[in-house]
Amino acid sequence: MKNLTEREIIRLLTYKFDHGSSIPLGFNDDVSAVPLSPKAWIIVKTDMLVASTDVPPGMTTQEAARKAVVATVSDFAAKGIQPQALMVSLGIPGPAIPKKIQEIARGLDQAAIEYNCRIIGGDTNQAEDLIVDITGIGIANPEKLVRRDGARLGDIVAVTGPFGKSAAGLRILKSNRKKQAVRYRPLLRAVLRPKARLTAGIALATAGGVTSSTDSSDGLAQSLHQVAEASNVGINLDTIPIAPIARRFARELRLSAIDLALYGGEEYELVLTVSPRRFPALKKRVRSLMKIGTVEPVDRGLTAKLGGERLQIEDRGWEHFT
Amino acid sequence: MKNLTEREIIRLLTYKFDHGSSIPLGFNDDVSAVPLSPKAWIIVKTDMLVASTDVPPGMTTQEAARKAVVATVSDFAAKGIQPQALMVSLGIPGPAIPKKIQEIARGLDQAAIEYNCRIIGGDTNQAEDLIVDITGIGIANPEKLVRRDGARLGDIVAVTGPFGKSAAGLRILKSNRKKQAVRYRPLLRAVLRPKARLTAGIALATAGGVTSSTDSSDGLAQSLHQVAEASNVGINLDTIPIAPIARRFARELRLSAIDLALYGGEEYELVLTVSPRRFPALKKRVRSLMKIGTVEPVDRGLTAKLGGERLQIEDRGWEHFT
Repeated sequence: MKNLTEREIIRLLTYKFDHGSSIPLGFNDDVSAVPLSPKAWIIVKTDMLVASTDVPPGMTTQEAARKAVVATVSDFAAKGIQPQALMVSLGIPGPAIPKKIQEIARGLDQAAIEYNCRIIGGDTNQAEDLIVDITGIGIANPEKLVRRDGARLGDIVAVTGPFGKSAAGLRILKSNRKKQAVRYRPLLRAVLRPKARLTAGIALATAGGVTSSTDSSDGLAQSLHQVAEASNVGINLDTIPIAPIARRFARELRLSAIDLALYGGEEYELVLTVSPRRFPALKKRVRSLMKIGTVEPVDRGLTAKLGGERLQIEDRGWEHFT
Repeated sequence: MKNLTEREIIRLLTYKFDHGSSIPLGFNDDVSAVPLSPKAWIIVKTDMLVASTDVPPGMTTQEAARKAVVATVSDFAAKGIQPQALMVSLGIPGPAIPKKIQEIARGLDQAAIEYNCRIIGGDTNQAEDLIVDITGIGIANPEKLVRRDGARLGDIVAVTGPFGKSAAGLRILKSNRKKQAVRYRPLLRAVLRPKARLTAGIALATAGGVTSSTDSSDGLAQSLHQVAEASNVGINLDTIPIAPIARRFARELRLSAIDLALYGGEEYELVLTVSPRRFPALKKRVRSLMKIGTVEPVDRGLTAKLGGERLQIEDRGWEHFT
């Protein structure tokens, strides 16, 4: 019997749930929406953290709980929307000792304060594994919400920061390399204390000129594919945004830094397309914004032209069930 | 090290999340709220189904997925609110074969159609156990929402139907009694295909005169305690609403039918307090509505006066981590 990939599972489910009448953002954007009026949509996002697959060795329970909130907030960041409230569903493996519950509470509370939202309710259950499922709720004007499907020919492709740190950090944690753990602390921090780019996302959406956006929790390559597919365009990169420390790490371990940055996964920078005319103004608002490529006709596919050589960007990255 | 009960866990968590400024419905009502305006609140509820604790032997994956939706919808029913949209977070134990995913999809879709709401998004993950976490989203006028804390002295205590069937059905399923399974099909159906009392809940709330309400997913006794505690009142029952078939089953197995009805747990009828003046009109709207007792001063506690004897109603029922 065939074991489905995460994408195939989602396709099977959404096929069943799709009853003809269209839902506001479809099933393929970072968030979902419930229309209230032409000027106001309720925005909802659910993201489930499962310890056995999403929590690497060396991550504390408090860090795991915080990370669960970051994952949900990151999707709001990509749309330029402030999440107002959070619902928390917990699966707690026994025994439920006070120390463990307090660590969970601290991690959740810390993240809620960090991103200026309020935990308003939830559910607790006994489970065989730690499960932290976070639902964020916000309000948006649909005309200002940055969708995934708005990229246009000639737009600039940009990111809010460099990639590769979390993939490198994950390698260190998984291989338990003590020496590197000391020398490459920022790589570990990228994995253990990721940051959602909420302030940057809201600033960019408010400024105007962002035509599409997604977060990069599935990795840079897959995020680019998602924007390209949703918008029916091609993308060519003229540079791969590799974090210098990830490049150094890759050189030391004789790894491909490009692979770390493209296919590493679980990153939290935003991937956007921007009207070229607006790029300078946006760059002034968010200094870390960097141009990495251009939107091209769809038949060009997804490529990176680096030093004369054209490289295909594969549609792979962080995916469950692989 | 102490192993906490579910209630202690919730207390530890909400203590940490409570930052002084009050949240609209507190942490102790059936649902949570995000105020939009004085006339409109976003209503949110999350309920997580974990197969190892919430799915009895004999329940199919499709039934489990459907039940997860029923549990969330039931809380909306208690508040008299139509849930408009559902978010679905799945933890799927490997291997993720098409048949299993299709069963999940069918169960979710079936329930969404049954309760007239729309699945608008979600998240899928690999997990060690089947997890179905459902978040419902609706809109309510806060003046019309039926809270848990509104019971007043002299109110009638009522339920939308009799109790004990699911506790009895669960016993049959857990002991694998084939003979009884055939003779007591309605008991099994109560467990395998529970129904949220959404139509009744909305009809009652719309009619007016319901002063407080909760669903009975923790069992009748605990639901009564929750209403009494939230409203700071006592309750005396003059009858225990036992389903005739549950009474028959109890007699055959020499069990206490009263215990089945009070402490069985995972029921889906609504427990309400009603202004005595409005009771006849409400009873006309929802024919199954039955008076079971009266709201009394808080110092009387929770009792049932049956044939001259006063019985204490204990604060126990269906709780995780026990």
